[in-house]
Order: sequence, then C-alpha cells, then structure tokens
Amino acid sequence: SVSPAPDEPTDHHPSDTIINLDHGDPTMYESYWKVVGQKYTSITIPGFQSLSYFANKKNLCWFLEPKLEEEIKRLHKMVGNAIVENRHIVVGTGSSQLILAALYALSDPLNEPNPISVVSAAPYYSSYPEMTDFLRSGLFKWSGDARCFNKEGPYIEMVTYPNNPDGVIREPVVNRANGMLVHDLAYYWPQYTAITSPADHDIILFTVSKCTGHAGSRIGWALVRNENIARKMVKFIEVNTIGVSKEAQLRAANILETISLSCQRHKPRDLENFFECSQRLMAERWKKLREAVDNNELFYVPKFPIQFCNFTRDFTETYPAFAWLKCKEGMDCEKLLRGHKILTRSGRRFGSGAEYVRISMLSRDEEFDLFLQRLSAVGGDNN
Amino acid sequence: SVSPAPDEPTDHHPSDTIINLDHGDPTMYESYWKVVGQKYTSITIPGFQSLSYFANKKNLCWFLEPKLEEEIKRLHKMVGNAIVENRHIVVGTGSSQLILAALYALSDPLNEPNPISVVSAAPYYSSYPEMTDFLRSGLFKWSGDARCFNKEGPYIEMVTYPNNPDGVIREPVVNRANGMLVHDLAYYWPQYTAITSPADHDIILFTVSKCTGHAGSRIGWALVRNENIARKMVKFIEVNTIGVSKEAQLRAANILETISLSCQRHKPRDLENFFECSQRLMAERWKKLREAVDNNELFYVPKFPIQFCNFTRDFTETYPAFAWLKCKEGMDCEKLLRGHKILTRSGRRFGSGAEYVRISMLSRDEEFDLFLQRLSAVGGDNN
Repeated sequence: SVSPAPDEPTDHHPSDTIINLDHGDPTMYESYWKVVGQKYTSITIPGFQSLSYFANKKNLCWFLEPKLEEEIKRLHKMVGNAIVENRHIVVGTGSSQLILAALYALSDPLNEPNPISVVSAAPYYSSYPEMTDFLRSGLFKWSGDARCFNKEGPYIEMVTYPNNPDGVIREPVVNRANGMLVHDLAYYWPQYTAITSPADHDIILFTVSKCTGHAGSRIGWALVRNENIARKMVKFIEVNTIGVSKEAQLRAANILETISLSCQRHKPRDLENFFECSQRLMAERWKKLREAVDNNELFYVPKFPIQFCNFTRDFTETYPAFAWLKCKEGMDCEKLLRGHKILTRSGRRFGSGAEYVRISMLSRDEEFDLFLQRLSAVGGDNN
Repeated sequence: SVSPAPDEPTDHHPSDTIINLDHGDPTMYESYWKVVGQKYTSITIPGFQSLSYFANKKNLCWFLEPKLEEEIKRLHKMVGNAIVENRHIVVGTGSSQLILAALYALSDPLNEPNPISVVSAAPYYSSYPEMTDFLRSGLFKWSGDARCFNKEGPYIEMVTYPNNPDGVIREPVVNRANGMLVHDLAYYWPQYTAITSPADHDIILFTVSKCTGHAGSRIGWALVRNENIARKMVKFIEVNTIGVSKEAQLRAANILETISLSCQRHKPRDLENFFECSQRLMAERWKKLREAVDNNELFYVPKFPIQFCNFTRDFTETYPAFAWLKCKEGMDCEKLLRGHKILTRSGRRFGSGAEYVRISMLSRDEEFDLFLQRLSAVGGDNN
C-alpha cells in the first residue's frame, strides 16, 4: 500500500530529511520526460471532448479509448513481451483495479458456497493480501504463500514476473487441477529484465506506472484470452467506477506512442530510445547499489542470471524496480534503516522475515544518491 | 448500470435507429462546451507532469490535486449548495467509487459479525443494490426499500436528492438510533432544482458527470465531516485504485473554474452563465415532454413544487435529469417503449413496478427530439 512520507526531502536540510523508499513511486522517469518534453508528449484536451461514459460502444470494453488500444498493441508487438493477437484488452484504473476485476471474474461464475482461495508464492506483492480481503468478500479470500497451499478445489494463483519484491522470474508453483492463474507482468519491460519470449497466459496485467513512469495517471490494462472472463472484468469496472478516465487514457496513448516512436530505427534525433535510456539508468543504479552493499558486511542483495533479450538483441541482467535487501539473520532491517531516516517496507509485509526489506529503485536521482550515502553510513556505525 | 446501445443513432436512417435513454449519459452538455470551447477550457498536460502517485503529501487525501480542491470549494461557496468549511474533501473515480468508499468507511470500524444493512427508499438508484452486493461483502449488504426496513442495530441509509429516478427532494426515512447516512447529491445543482439551503450532512457525494456533463472523466468528490471516516474513505480508494487519475482531476479543476468564472457578474461576454444556460435547456425539454405526455392518455410524469432558488434569486421548478414516466396500471412500460425503439430502464430495477420507466433527459438534441416524436407515436398506436 501507498502511504505518504511524513516529510518530503528538501534542498535545504538534506541530512534531516526522511527518504521514503517504501512505495515504488516511479519519479526516476521524470528526467527522461523532461528532455522529451513539450515537443513530443504534450496533449491538449478541449472542454467538449469525452463527455460521454462511452469510448467505443462496439467494443466489449466499451470504455476503452480506441487510440489507447492501438498503442498498447503496437508497443507489445514492438517489444515482444506479450501476445496481443486474439486477446481482449480491458483497461483499468491502474492494475490494482484489474487485479480485483480478475479475482471477481474468475470467482463469481463458480457459484461456490465458500470464497475461492487466492495465493502467491512468498515473497509476494504486499498489497495482494489486503486487496483480496479488505471488503471481506464471499467470492475470494487470501490464503497466503502458494508454496504452503494444500486445500482441495478451485484456487487463484497470482504469478508475478519479474517478481515484486525480489525480481525473480517466476512460474506457477501450485500447478493443480482447478487452478486459475493471473499473471502480473507490471515489470516485464526491457529496462528491468531480458524479454525472452512473448508472454502467453490467460490473464496478463500491465500498467503504465511501471512501464513509462506515469503512476499518477492510474492506467493499467489486461490481455485476456477468454471472452466471458473479459466481459466479467468489464462488468467489475462498470460497477466499481463506471469505466476509466478518458483523459488519462488519451494521455497514456500519447505516451506509449512516443515510446514506440523513440524505438524506431528512423526516429527523430532528439528523441532518445526510451528503453535504452531507462535500462542504462537502472543498470547504473544497480551498479552503485552493489558497490555500496559489497563494501558493507551487514547487507546482501540478490544476484540475477544474464539472459539474452530479444528486444535489445543483447545479453542483460535483471535490474529490478525494487531492491530486496537482506540483513544478517535476526536483525530487523526496516527498523535499522528507519533509524537512518530511510523508510522501506519490511519483509514481513511480503510473507518473509524481518531481516528483509523492499527498497524502491525508482526515486529521483537526489534521493537515490542520498539513500546510498546513508546506507553506507549504516555499515559504518555497525561494523 | 451502464450498458452500451446495440446501435447508435445515425443521421442516415433515423427511423430504424434505437434511441438509448437507459443510462444517464450527459451528452446534452456538449453544446455548451463546444461554444465555450478552445478559449476557456482546453488544458495541456506535458509528458513529465504528474508521474507520482502523490498529489499533495500533506493532505489527508494525498492523491487530491490542490487545484481541484480549490475549485470544488469555490464552486460550492458560489452556488451555495453545500457547506465546505471544516469538511474533508475526498476525490474519487466518479461518485460510484465514493459510494463504495463510504460503505466501507462506515461499516469496517464497527467490527460487526454480520454485514451492515444498506437501505434506500424506493424508487432508489438502480445501481445501489448491485454496487453493495456484487462482491458479496461481509461488511455491508443491500437490504432494500428503507420504508420496509425493520431490523435492529446499525444500518446505512442512502439519501438521494433530487432523487434518481424520480426527482423528489428527500429526507431520511428510517430515522433510528445507530443509523448512518450517506447523502448522494449528484443532482443538487441549479439546472435541476432550486438551491434552497447549503447541504450540511456527515457524508455528501457529488460528481462532475451530472454537474458539468463530463462523465468520461470519472471524477466525483465527497464532503466528509468526520476525519476518521474521511481517512477510511481514502484508504478504500488507496486499496481499490491507488488514487484517482491526475489528468482527470486537472481537467475537472479547469472545467469547474470556467463554470465559476461564467457565473461572475463581470464575466467575459462570450462566456455564457453555465447554470442559466443549462437550466434553460432543461426547462425547454421538460416543457416539450409535458406537452407530449399531456396529449397522450397512456403516460404520466410527476409534477414538482415551485421553490425559491437562492442561487438564481428566482422561483423555479425541479427539472430532473431523468423523467420517471408512468404507464397505465398493468402495462410493462419498458417493453412498450422498446417496441418503439426507445430503450429505457424499467421501474422494477428501482424497486418499483413495471408500469414505471426511467428516461434520461440529458441526451443530445437530435436524440431527444426523436424520442419525443416516437413517444407521441406510441400514443397514436394505442389510443
């Protein structure tokens, strides 16, 4: 869950300010969009546009802007990270809403007397338990770590790759009959990991927040194989919010279009390739983080295999959007870092131990550098 | 609920096209915004703006754009339809999300073993039952017509004025201890009814969809007296959609600002007073509808008292956004009109009888005129 920082960093007293890396606010991407700026990405919406609830009455997803649908398909085809042919696209108010829509669409038609179990292998995205249970739904219920799941009957497994919080490329772990899968691929983009093949699953979720950095827009989308499931997801969004903001969809379409343009061979000179630029930033940050951690006996971060990326046509490591930092056994890592004015999310929130924390790698440069300075200082105190 | 028309009206074969007045799509307002147009209401959003999840970390509602908050307050103060002093403003993805947020905020802290009853006096907004029950929540449960409610213990009553579907100015009907009220004031604006006093309740919901016509933006807001309730509503929106689209909020702020400007004594000459213009349109449509109904023995529409409006400083009728049309007893009005290619919503959906239908009065001019022609023809067939 997202919760505001008690204080924002200021330029005046950097040593007193609290750095909030608890949530994954993707402000790192501001630098790219400032350069690209006015020329490629401004959109203007006149007052008489998009008054209607409807964007496209002929479409199963009647509130989806045709332009956004087009740009989503174009981007996936170019990046090669998901199959879009013969898939229904459902737009959501961020992928959070689509997770709930998927749970509803999968569980409601079963008419089971008891709620369907929802599981994910630990460490799992910390919001899954809360999203699943906050309304005490009779349709679905959080049932914890997928590796410990042993109930009979239907279940839903959330499969996240690269995984939030730890960056691992995952596969389903339960693998039983009556299993239903929701693939959360928010981070399956070239800046974070090698694109090894186009994802091909029943329900796949993406979000602009993590792809382009536009978290404030609240735009996500699902690629759905089965028409009835897609219809049910649309139904959920209809009852929950009667569709998705048209302004946000139009802007997201414009942003995705710019990214696609930036990846063309004959692109404008002043438009740097978005994924190259973002991957370079991520690689630099991970290099700096590893240096800080290597010089420090207290901490450990996971290593990732090098794989060939079909999009960049080169070998690459995984550079996750979060660092899954581990302290020595028995230490409370979140508490330790909080003492040094670094707010992170405890491993306990992800179904793991207190020796772990999740740290956002997507903050602005100043914050990231200050974080590294302080992390190094923690070692200094304790070694 | 909103569902797309099987066919949209075209200019080519008006006699074959189906007119969909089932949902309240407020396209009537396009004509005003086209005239005001580019000059006052275009907004431009550069690509680097609003990347963050946060709009205002210091605010209880951390995803609320400060500019939108300011314009909401300004408009309410000018119109005089709600007290904003010492109220918390919570923005939502339309008022649908805020209804759910309110139900959650009121029921969750009670820790009751059984779901809290949610009631509203019939005829009630047809979406209340579905919104309340679609996730089979253990927190709240639809319990039907408030006038028949006789259970002990806490309950939530939805109070809607002017009422959707029938335009009546309402008050709570249960009036028992442990009652909690949510006031849905989507239509408490000068184009629909006299503003007789500023609303002053615990939780009041508004939406731009019905105030300005921008239903595609999905922006609503709640005025909340109690801080803990407001925090809980924010929490709901955080878990449900991690906030509300910034683009939609910025545009809504711009639209509300233009409306406020249009009501100033020293307004620009080419900016017609929004509420005067909209009220004139509504009055004309209701006059035409009454003429069509008066010439027809089959149908009846309710009459409304004339009241003094503190905003327009004049006496006015209520001109509801929906016509609550009644057929002769024993007829199925929705079926009858469907036979004449007019889609409406049956009274049964609102907890009333099949002799009633709800008809949107907010369609585009062409559609409204075609509707009146066909309504007159129904009489011709049957008289």
